[in-house]
Amino acid sequence: MKIALAQLNYIVNHFEYNKAKMVKAIERAKSDCVDLIVFSELSICGYTPHDLLERENFIANCDTAINQLSTHCKGITAIVGTPSLNPNSKGKMLYNSAYVLRDGAVVSIHHKTLLPTYDVFDEYRYFEPNSDFNIININGKRIAITICEDLWDDQPVSSAFAKNRLYKSSPMDKLKEFNPELIINIAASPFSYNNEEYRKKVFTDNINRYKIPVIYVNQIGANTELIFDGGSMVLDRKGQILEKLKSFEEDYKVIDSESLESNQPISSETISDDIRISRIYNAIVLGIRDYFKKMGFTKATLGLSGGIDSAVTLAMAVDALGRENLRVLLMPSKYSSQHSIDDAVALANNLHIQYDLISIQDTFDSFNNGLSGIFKGMDEGIAEENLQARIRGTLLMALSNKFGHLLLNTSNKSEAAVGYGTLYGDMNGALSVLGDVYKTDVFKLARFINREKEIIPINTIVKPPSAELRPNQKDSDSLPEYDLLDKILFRYIEEQKSSETIISEGFDSLTVLKTIRLVNINEYKRFQAPPILRVSSKAFGFGRRMPIAAKW
Amino acid sequence: MKIALAQLNYIVNHFEYNKAKMVKAIERAKSDCVDLIVFSELSICGYTPHDLLERENFIANCDTAINQLSTHCKGITAIVGTPSLNPNSKGKMLYNSAYVLRDGAVVSIHHKTLLPTYDVFDEYRYFEPNSDFNIININGKRIAITICEDLWDDQPVSSAFAKNRLYKSSPMDKLKEFNPELIINIAASPFSYNNEEYRKKVFTDNINRYKIPVIYVNQIGANTELIFDGGSMVLDRKGQILEKLKSFEEDYKVIDSESLESNQPISSETISDDIRISRIYNAIVLGIRDYFKKMGFTKATLGLSGGIDSAVTLAMAVDALGRENLRVLLMPSKYSSQHSIDDAVALANNLHIQYDLISIQDTFDSFNNGLSGIFKGMDEGIAEENLQARIRGTLLMALSNKFGHLLLNTSNKSEAAVGYGTLYGDMNGALSVLGDVYKTDVFKLARFINREKEIIPINTIVKPPSAELRPNQKDSDSLPEYDLLDKILFRYIEEQKSSETIISEGFDSLTVLKTIRLVNINEYKRFQAPPILRVSSKAFGFGRRMPIAAKW
Repeated sequence: MKIALAQLNYIVNHFEYNKAKMVKAIERAKSDCVDLIVFSELSICGYTPHDLLERENFIANCDTAINQLSTHCKGITAIVGTPSLNPNSKGKMLYNSAYVLRDGAVVSIHHKTLLPTYDVFDEYRYFEPNSDFNIININGKRIAITICEDLWDDQPVSSAFAKNRLYKSSPMDKLKEFNPELIINIAASPFSYNNEEYRKKVFTDNINRYKIPVIYVNQIGANTELIFDGGSMVLDRKGQILEKLKSFEEDYKVIDSESLESNQPISSETISDDIRISRIYNAIVLGIRDYFKKMGFTKATLGLSGGIDSAVTLAMAVDALGRENLRVLLMPSKYSSQHSIDDAVALANNLHIQYDLISIQDTFDSFNNGLSGIFKGMDEGIAEENLQARIRGTLLMALSNKFGHLLLNTSNKSEAAVGYGTLYGDMNGALSVLGDVYKTDVFKLARFINREKEIIPINTIVKPPSAELRPNQKDSDSLPEYDLLDKILFRYIEEQKSSETIISEGFDSLTVLKTIRLVNINEYKRFQAPPILRVSSKAFGFGRRMPIAAKW
Repeated sequence: MKIALAQLNYIVNHFEYNKAKMVKAIERAKSDCVDLIVFSELSICGYTPHDLLERENFIANCDTAINQLSTHCKGITAIVGTPSLNPNSKGKMLYNSAYVLRDGAVVSIHHKTLLPTYDVFDEYRYFEPNSDFNIININGKRIAITICEDLWDDQPVSSAFAKNRLYKSSPMDKLKEFNPELIINIAASPFSYNNEEYRKKVFTDNINRYKIPVIYVNQIGANTELIFDGGSMVLDRKGQILEKLKSFEEDYKVIDSESLESNQPISSETISDDIRISRIYNAIVLGIRDYFKKMGFTKATLGLSGGIDSAVTLAMAVDALGRENLRVLLMPSKYSSQHSIDDAVALANNLHIQYDLISIQDTFDSFNNGLSGIFKGMDEGIAEENLQARIRGTLLMALSNKFGHLLLNTSNKSEAAVGYGTLYGDMNGALSVLGDVYKTDVFKLARFINREKEIIPINTIVKPPSAELRPNQKDSDSLPEYDLLDKILFRYIEEQKSSETIISEGFDSLTVLKTIRLVNINEYKRFQAPPILRVSSKAFGFGRRMPIAAKW
């Protein structure tokens, strides 16, 4: 039997677009004499629709699109992901389902059993877990259809206080009773830089347990914060990867289920720090590109300070959107060093970007003048530092409003963590590009961008980071060095370790306590941050929900 | 048996504070010869701790506090809410539990069965549902202990596409097999203006089904967006309310379980529009007060425009924080009318508030001058309107940064819905006071505030709303009249009706489609809004999760 894996980039709620894409793949598969084509989880509507799932007409639109799609399945079977109504009077409104379409009809329906409800996942908010198990016979092949998490009953975890087994049941334990020959897993599994290894382990563990080959079809494309990297796979009953579809791109591949035993496994990359950085780079470029495309925008702006964050953001934005779609502002004050302006200009020139220079000094003076009555006799301080950042944020938004360039936020994860940024100032932006990338990784991204030639001026990379909001300011005046800071942050945020545990690993206790306190008391600031492209296992935003009003 | 209902205001993660409060109540109960004292759901840590529940030391702190609390329970039994570890190797890490403490020991543990995971609730993110049922005998009385949602297996719904029965099981169906004489329900049931009626219906329905009296102990106090109104109750086996504790205040009441049959029911208020408005007022005042208290702030600021939103916000802030803690800015431009300035001054004087007037004209000119190069030859428009709002937002934040006054946001729900507001401008603020109050209700709040004397100048109430960002601007230039707009918004947001349904109810189709489109395309703006005090059944923010990058 010939099976096509269709790894496509869907737009949430765009039924015409998604359906047209799927029809095109079905027609291609027909001409390739394919018997079965497999699409990813919730493919008909895009993953994740969030609370659109609570709207009756959204579900009706899914049904209509599925019915229309089925009419294209003449002489071919398709597996499509869609929400479906739970007909029972008790329980959640919906199931997260895989529909099997053939010859204009829905021939079989399979619901998701394990509903991820942690980190960025909210599935139990909408869906009832499946409790009826069956397999399907397609062209004489006995196939167990599973949906994403259904194979993740035993999963790797990043946090110190977490379980591998989040669910009481294992769907494959039920399905194996029907003696399937093949497992198909349709998924919407978001990118994080270590998730590819997690996936391989999960599939290999399943194959070790059940001795059944796995075909895995993942979604590709970014939807606001969540980036889906694709990387669909075919694994044989030994757990060897026979085929792997592209990462960060749409892909389509036809395999022959009869040759699953005889094919040679492909060699699989071993994760290294270089590979981790290149993955993050590719994920972010996809994240920017899709945000603009799906929001209907083409042009972007940002403030170029001469520092590393705005430089790396700009270089990735150019890769994502094209240099002709970028227009940036340099906004020096009296505290800006000449080398910052020079470095910013050099970067804009290296990338052939249109830039304008607007001094903020007059406007800063004008604000200070307006406030002089109420600030009388008080020293300059944080208020004046933030004022400069807010003038810059306001100028960028003026350009954005006038010309339709979306503002890209350039804050990194280390800053976002400790609140080293100005709300309504440099925290502005439609999308946070680096908000899930620690400062030490921003430096690595810069070197990755420069791997063939100097795009980001070397001075931007080697000089000590500074916000330049007061004379001779350096980040290290108020924060630990980033090498140290990021290690503490990683242990607190990704690994969810307590201060006691981190200190017991040999970190200075005052530094740890100060850092963690800064993270905690800045929940209020991050609450108003832009959506952050997620590249780690624990990003700020939707997947990390902390109280604001609390004792810290 | 004497039972004390302890309705207290907890601080999330503040174990010393919460424990001290509970110890004080236990000591009072002892002196009242109470046999059993009942605290609310997750009382030991405050509801809701969100992802603090994923931290090992947080759970350890709960355990420690429970153990310490138990040592105070000499000769008295206490029911306390706490998260507890799930000892099984499979399933979620935690249970949401009620611990029964007596004589220094935990004598019984009861877990929550129905885990709300909709709107503002995320409980399945953390907790395993209970599957073991038992009752407890306290002083010879057979008591079924339930936790909040456990009695809501059949619940009223506000949305057009929702079910009354979200769960497959009914915990009381299991518990009634043990023949209990009393149901105790410990809860953290957040306020919405119609929730009191929902609660009464739920308890009455349960009593009709099971013929057992109910003692209901709710949390009181606001935690960021969520306001808990208390209103704990005692209902007899006929479903009559015998006792009701205060709303929006801590309260403590002792009842005698033997007199449940002989007591007279109290009369219960019937909801009217006046009562709805007074509830919203009280809830918001509590919401402001607790946000400041729990964040460790006392002073607030806001921009007074002469319009109704800032006037109502200020009046409620004065009630919550005291007039001495308010300091406001008037920031006229050349588009500000004299009556706006006069109305703002009159309000500040009526409330005896310190105010300063800073003209934004010079700073506006300075920005325009800086931008003149890149805006050359272009007409004034949205960019310049937003610029004015952002200058005002920046001035308010400067005052906030300098003097430590938290900025209160004054946007209302109608504006937030259609995106009629400037991000990083008038959308600034630590807390959105009116973000869940439609404009037509803001007018009603103004009249409520003026019920005894004119606090808000009558001119502020009767003049047509205007943003005053260009000459002779009125809100109705770009939006439908608020009477109409709010009706459409309510049907779309609270009732989750589709445009087709709303049009079929007789609304003009172009107006409906335009309004709904505005709501949808402004998800990106609301994503960066401050936390909004929730007073309705569907507020923007945590309880309404919509995609940003999607087809609208």
